[in-house]
Amino acid sequence: MPNPTAAMLVIGDEILSGRTRDANMHHLAGALTKHGIDLEEVRVVSDDRAAIIAATRALAAGFDHLFTSGGIGPTHDDITAECIAAAFDTPISIRDDARAILQAHYDESGRELNDARLRMARIPDGATLIENPVSAAPGFTIENVHVMAGVPQVFEAMLASILPHLTGGSPLLSQTMRLMRGEGNVAEPLGKLANDFPDLSIGSYPFVKDGVYGTNIVVRGTSGADIDAAMTRLAHLFADDT
Amino acid sequence: MPNPTAAMLVIGDEILSGRTRDANMHHLAGALTKHGIDLEEVRVVSDDRAAIIAATRALAAGFDHLFTSGGIGPTHDDITAECIAAAFDTPISIRDDARAILQAHYDESGRELNDARLRMARIPDGATLIENPVSAAPGFTIENVHVMAGVPQVFEAMLASILPHLTGGSPLLSQTMRLMRGEGNVAEPLGKLANDFPDLSIGSYPFVKDGVYGTNIVVRGTSGADIDAAMTRLAHLFADDT
Repeated sequence: MPNPTAAMLVIGDEILSGRTRDANMHHLAGALTKHGIDLEEVRVVSDDRAAIIAATRALAAGFDHLFTSGGIGPTHDDITAECIAAAFDTPISIRDDARAILQAHYDESGRELNDARLRMARIPDGATLIENPVSAAPGFTIENVHVMAGVPQVFEAMLASILPHLTGGSPLLSQTMRLMRGEGNVAEPLGKLANDFPDLSIGSYPFVKDGVYGTNIVVRGTSGADIDAAMTRLAHLFADDT
Repeated sequence: MPNPTAAMLVIGDEILSGRTRDANMHHLAGALTKHGIDLEEVRVVSDDRAAIIAATRALAAGFDHLFTSGGIGPTHDDITAECIAAAFDTPISIRDDARAILQAHYDESGRELNDARLRMARIPDGATLIENPVSAAPGFTIENVHVMAGVPQVFEAMLASILPHLTGGSPLLSQTMRLMRGEGNVAEPLGKLANDFPDLSIGSYPFVKDGVYGTNIVVRGTSGADIDAAMTRLAHLFADDT
């Protein structure tokens, strides 16, 4: 049975302007690979209502899961929750359980649950809350869309709380062989190897180190035995270079 | 006149599996912002023919420029060039000028221009070559799509060689104010400020440092005078916190 598929939607002007370097994509990619869910597409869009709604609809329809990152804070530019609701034609309002979580959090820290912070209790009808052990304000899951914060510590904590509940497939395994020869010298034997192992993904990643050309060969798949067999073949093919 | 718009398409299984952390998106975002081209969407897709063609068509049609990264090397999984050609229903073949560049490069380094490396001379009909001062194999521009390598040093060198030839608009300027109070305490005055300066983008980025909540307020726009005026207002609003 093939692994479940996933897409990610990163929401934020700060990524697209170059101010902030996204960290959540790389974290999600690694976590899903381990869990046996195949991340097949990522989109990054700005804080723009139409763009968020269109991307949500396309990706939620195209993949088993959609994970979003960003735009669920208290400020005027945090419009993700209402856009997700709009994408599913679902009403959104302040929900009692989310409000209670925020109230307890701000009471404890002696800060005020003002109108701006209360925006973070707006949850689309029918959604399930995602726990936020870092800063309380919850994320939510509606249909197959998991809506999470952009701040990396919060994103990672939210993902850790939902991932165990998602059905995974076979974790993607990989082995790497580092060769001190240029990619152009490994391309032909590698193409033949890829033909012989159609269930494996065989990638090559060139690098230059101290002026010398090298290539990392990465063999990925869900069968450890197939990967071992391919690595043995690789070792014979490039016996002089490893 | 509004700035030209752009999208980026990152091609590579290695990003989506979490093996490699993409660096080109952040570099492109910063470079385009300085040049006055607005990066509005990024997509990351795997080394999959249908996915690459579909994304290329959608993004080339939706934005003034599309920049791609990855998949133009010599190996079997480097399928970007042929997919871009297919997206434009254009033939692709080994072109003499590209072959001459590669021949000179490999002659100079005493390596062989074998069949695998010759794949890097396949250029869609009607495309213009993009110079690669790092490892010779050229990128290309076809219509409004700029096809570049995934290796960061090569991507950056190719971008540097085409960017001066692209018409830019007004560079996006920004100023940042660091406040030692939580985002929920700045959200309301910030929303009012955003209303008063409709041509500016005012973003807030929360952080936690040593257990204390803080927020960076970033004011972006193309008018330095407007940004100065907004920053003056901000300084009065939060006189106690900076």
